[in-house]
Amino acid sequence: MKGIVYHGERDVRVETLPDPTPLDARGAVVKIERTAICGSDLHLYHGNMPLENPKGFTLGHEFVGEVVEVGSEVKLRRPGDRVIVSGVIGCGDCPPCVRGEVVRCLANATQVFGTTEHLDGGQAEAAAVPVADHCLTPIPDGISLEQAVLLTDILPTGFYGAKLAGIEPGDTVVVIGAGPVGIQALLSAQLFGPAQVFQVDRVPERLALAEKLGAIPVHVDHAEARIAEATDGQGADCVIEAVGLDATILSAIGLVRTGGNVAVVGVSMSSALPFPMNAAFMKQLTFRTGLVPVPELWPALIPLVASGRLNPEVVFSHQMGLSEGAEAYRAFDARENGVMKILLDPSR
Amino acid sequence: MKGIVYHGERDVRVETLPDPTPLDARGAVVKIERTAICGSDLHLYHGNMPLENPKGFTLGHEFVGEVVEVGSEVKLRRPGDRVIVSGVIGCGDCPPCVRGEVVRCLANATQVFGTTEHLDGGQAEAAAVPVADHCLTPIPDGISLEQAVLLTDILPTGFYGAKLAGIEPGDTVVVIGAGPVGIQALLSAQLFGPAQVFQVDRVPERLALAEKLGAIPVHVDHAEARIAEATDGQGADCVIEAVGLDATILSAIGLVRTGGNVAVVGVSMSSALPFPMNAAFMKQLTFRTGLVPVPELWPALIPLVASGRLNPEVVFSHQMGLSEGAEAYRAFDARENGVMKILLDPSR
Amino acid sequence: MKGIVYHGERDVRVETLPDPTPLDARGAVVKIERTAICGSDLHLYHGNMPLENPKGFTLGHEFVGEVVEVGSEVKLRRPGDRVIVSGVIGCGDCPPCVRGEVVRCLANATQVFGTTEHLDGGQAEAAAVPVADHCLTPIPDGISLEQAVLLTDILPTGFYGAKLAGIEPGDTVVVIGAGPVGIQALLSAQLFGPAQVFQVDRVPERLALAEKLGAIPVHVDHAEARIAEATDGQGADCVIEAVGLDATILSAIGLVRTGGNVAVVGVSMSSALPFPMNAAFMKQLTFRTGLVPVPELWPALIPLVASGRLNPEVVFSHQMGLSEGAEAYRAFDARENGVMKILLDPSR
Amino acid sequence: MKGIVYHGERDVRVETLPDPTPLDARGAVVKIERTAICGSDLHLYHGNMPLENPKGFTLGHEFVGEVVEVGSEVKLRRPGDRVIVSGVIGCGDCPPCVRGEVVRCLANATQVFGTTEHLDGGQAEAAAVPVADHCLTPIPDGISLEQAVLLTDILPTGFYGAKLAGIEPGDTVVVIGAGPVGIQALLSAQLFGPAQVFQVDRVPERLALAEKLGAIPVHVDHAEARIAEATDGQGADCVIEAVGLDATILSAIGLVRTGGNVAVVGVSMSSALPFPMNAAFMKQLTFRTGLVPVPELWPALIPLVASGRLNPEVVFSHQMGLSEGAEAYRAFDARENGVMKILLDPSR
Repeated sequence: MKGIVYHGERDVRVETLPDPTPLDARGAVVKIERTAICGSDLHLYHGNMPLENPKGFTLGHEFVGEVVEVGSEVKLRRPGDRVIVSGVIGCGDCPPCVRGEVVRCLANATQVFGTTEHLDGGQAEAAAVPVADHCLTPIPDGISLEQAVLLTDILPTGFYGAKLAGIEPGDTVVVIGAGPVGIQALLSAQLFGPAQVFQVDRVPERLALAEKLGAIPVHVDHAEARIAEATDGQGADCVIEAVGLDATILSAIGLVRTGGNVAVVGVSMSSALPFPMNAAFMKQLTFRTGLVPVPELWPALIPLVASGRLNPEVVFSHQMGLSEGAEAYRAFDARENGVMKILLDPSR
Repeated sequence: MKGIVYHGERDVRVETLPDPTPLDARGAVVKIERTAICGSDLHLYHGNMPLENPKGFTLGHEFVGEVVEVGSEVKLRRPGDRVIVSGVIGCGDCPPCVRGEVVRCLANATQVFGTTEHLDGGQAEAAAVPVADHCLTPIPDGISLEQAVLLTDILPTGFYGAKLAGIEPGDTVVVIGAGPVGIQALLSAQLFGPAQVFQVDRVPERLALAEKLGAIPVHVDHAEARIAEATDGQGADCVIEAVGLDATILSAIGLVRTGGNVAVVGVSMSSALPFPMNAAFMKQLTFRTGLVPVPELWPALIPLVASGRLNPEVVFSHQMGLSEGAEAYRAFDARENGVMKILLDPSR
Repeated sequence: MKGIVYHGERDVRVETLPDPTPLDARGAVVKIERTAICGSDLHLYHGNMPLENPKGFTLGHEFVGEVVEVGSEVKLRRPGDRVIVSGVIGCGDCPPCVRGEVVRCLANATQVFGTTEHLDGGQAEAAAVPVADHCLTPIPDGISLEQAVLLTDILPTGFYGAKLAGIEPGDTVVVIGAGPVGIQALLSAQLFGPAQVFQVDRVPERLALAEKLGAIPVHVDHAEARIAEATDGQGADCVIEAVGLDATILSAIGLVRTGGNVAVVGVSMSSALPFPMNAAFMKQLTFRTGLVPVPELWPALIPLVASGRLNPEVVFSHQMGLSEGAEAYRAFDARENGVMKILLDPSR
Repeated sequence: MKGIVYHGERDVRVETLPDPTPLDARGAVVKIERTAICGSDLHLYHGNMPLENPKGFTLGHEFVGEVVEVGSEVKLRRPGDRVIVSGVIGCGDCPPCVRGEVVRCLANATQVFGTTEHLDGGQAEAAAVPVADHCLTPIPDGISLEQAVLLTDILPTGFYGAKLAGIEPGDTVVVIGAGPVGIQALLSAQLFGPAQVFQVDRVPERLALAEKLGAIPVHVDHAEARIAEATDGQGADCVIEAVGLDATILSAIGLVRTGGNVAVVGVSMSSALPFPMNAAFMKQLTFRTGLVPVPELWPALIPLVASGRLNPEVVFSHQMGLSEGAEAYRAFDARENGVMKILLDPSR
């Protein structure tokens, strides 16, 4: 089969690989129908994570498809099932895992597909998935393949941000970043009844999309003044950070009102963000962050997508074949031609 | 001035009354610009509440207008202010009252305008309002008079129902009743991100309005089967009852799933609803009811109406002059000509 | 083996029965070390539930002991494990069941041991338990056998009542009933930081025990006046009902303040409690009830008992041999000699 | 009158000052019966805050006493009332202030007594307090003067930490710091039903006090290993930081489990705490901090102290006269003779 293999900084290649088999009796193999590149894949692409295995590994944690083989202990899934794969998984056995809270796995087995040589990803024609009963859920009627791809990571991530932000009806919300995750955060924030959502970015096309979806677009240079004006100088009730840079995280803290909530779902590599404790103290700040527990959020999100209330697929700007994988990475990284997010078809 | 005076069962008359003056140093007089008849006014109209005062009293707890006179101790409001009046008030001084939780008034001073001879209502050209600093809030830019009228009672009531029902994103919600309060409950429920809202009634026009607003309309005769079908036989996560009859309250308990929530905001006169404790026990039922604490809910609702996210005025089917008050009551009670809710203009 | 068999109203007999074997591959057999009679067993004893099976069945849902045999699909438990058995069980597979919320079982498989001929109970020398991985948990160091027996039902029931009552630090709480469940409710309520807990009963010994444990004892005849006096006439913040009679449930509603919470964990057989809707509406009542989801509450309760913060065993007033089972039922029902709760030893 | 006046780093002097008069019509004068030195006063004492006013100002935000004079617009307090003074105040008028949430004051009028020349404090024989109706509450029966002093700041601060930490029954809690605030945090944490509370410090006497009050004492050097051992390597559910240093705040983040809560109530002057975003992200951290909203917490705490459930006065190790103020500061700063907290009597 074909897959996109990571070889180091800015070196990803579409290669022919052995067909996967179940990792063990609890695993399964999924023939992949659609996959996508995530902004967090760029942390690898930029070489921010050292490569231990010189042979590389298959990238990608956003993929959906058809179960084609199951191990002997798999109970809930059968070949022929069309499934969403959780981009983040745990041991599948401990109490948090059975509740879907895979990041709290008591066995310290939390992993993201396609980020290390220990677990190949799904930017490929097929993938082996461990603990199939826990990391797979059927694609129900009413959910398209491209919607399903977004349920593997970034819609849950945006929704997790909105939940952590504690939005209540009537609130003023700020979403920092109008990239793919920021847009999912906007759509998710709207589920909690805010009176107004401001979306902050510097890219005109991204701000235009946010506005079309109901946000009030704000250029990053005007964010402080605009939020102050809209809130009588008090600041926003809730801020969702969907970028992951020190500067944007600090901006989130600056924009929130006293007693408000900041939720950071942008992936940060920072080990020493210069956190303003004195200001946070006077602000009675609640500051939350976290890797998304994908399966825990499915029971809320799947009915919302299936019923048509959530339309996360608006973030796909381009569709390409898996065979164009290297080019897709390059274009996504460069944000060429207004690339927002690229859907990959393994059959092409 | 003119006002609609209650004289007994089905006997309401537009009469000339003395112009009101402030009740005391903390009171104010409001020149009324719009008012409306509420479903709960029909409890009086039907003679379900005995009349103590043979001289009658002015009806109505839904009214908005302009402050024309204030007592010497009123601090926040001035003549010329255009205001929403809370239909429900308390002492204004105790800790719950200062938080807007007027139904929890520690002085036992909770009252509804225009329901007894102790406090004349606002189906009139003007009204005296007590504790003006607490029961009045300005009509902000972006809120029309007819929207403002709905902020005096039934939008907060519907929203209170949605809050008590504990709706979470992805939930299946049932609203029983598609009258004016039921429609406000629908609009409010949608603020909490449900995957689907079923609205139950028997009047085709009301079901049609609910459907237009995004609900799935269900005739009362099919409710049990329809909800069972939609939920794999489990029942709805949350049910909001907006009628107030024993039968509909019991239906709400029947339709909810194990561990679900029932919120009753329909006004019930029942002192002995035959409550199924054994079924409730097996269902782990949470059952909530309550008169709406209007001012407590304004900080959430006013920004939502002002920003255009909530459009409660869809319930007004007819507009009449105050001078047609007796006819308005008759038509509202009879539901003639598809009457849903009647807006009254005191200048006519 | 020996077991207490139900034959009809006031007819329970210690009989010799076949030794149990695992019900299926997921089941196990537990050799019982201690068991107890629950107040809810008296509903059967009083003949309030019709007997379908003329051969009778073994009573009892409160039992702990040693696993002696497991089916082939049992993963977590092994012979030799000493375990607490959940008195209430579900299918063990559906999402609520894996979270321990066995009363919300989506397969409608919620059962209580020893209450029908479909599932023999544990007032016996041994019992067959289904879905052993889900209904058994190890007895950890620091928990005695008599404490373990209380973790099968009534401590979780009392704690469930305290949780449903929504107690917050500084609250005034009323517990109605000072029987075994009422005492567990008191101990549980104290975990939530109330300023004062009133316990209502009419039996002097029970009130004395409540007082010894930190409650303010109140005779039922003085409850209304005493709570009014203690709360400036406002009523209690939270009321836990631990009896299950219509009169005591209505009393709970009467004693709570506006905006307060009533939690009913007394088992009621009532299908038509005359519920005061009009009063509940003016009180903004939250009314909750439910069968206890035992395993869901173990993660909180087991550490509390093991660390010595909770001492639920104070309710055991008598110890008897299983062979004295018929006499034990009679004495428990008659409340002879100050019987509060009887611990039974199957080895005697 | 006499008062302790701040003149700069380590320069505080007991001086004779003019008797205070009400600041305006809403103010009052309190004759002080007891006052105390707070750990946060040492930030001033150490010269960490520049002095704008060369004439100095009276220190102290923990004081209680008798109202001796009120302005013409004060409604709730009268001369002769014995009162607790909130150490933190706001404008008293805006919605957050009327709810007691004085740190969220919309007028940006949040102040702490005795920390700047703009508001003299209460380490004196008398003090002028603004907005008397909002910052004073009566000392009820059952509360001693020394308990009352602790209700002005540090008991609410400790309780605020426990609330922010989101403790649930059965949790494992760590309190970092066993100074006066840390001990209040321990007592407060115990209100939420933890299974065990570890208290971390390096001073043997402080650890001994914590142990006597029910905590498990842990020397700071062993904290990491001890908490790991007690939690199977998972970390604590909740950590309350009551010191305010970068090192202890970072330690709090290190000790909490994935999905746990850290609450910082130690006063930090740090504007750039090196916050480990990457670790926090993998930990799904909730991190809260804030200046305490004293009056908001009184309704919970006052009944708890009055009923005897909370005994915060255990932190007072020494009593001195106000005239010994300079010596008291020196001894408190040096922690001489096992000084924990010093109660000052203005009559001496």
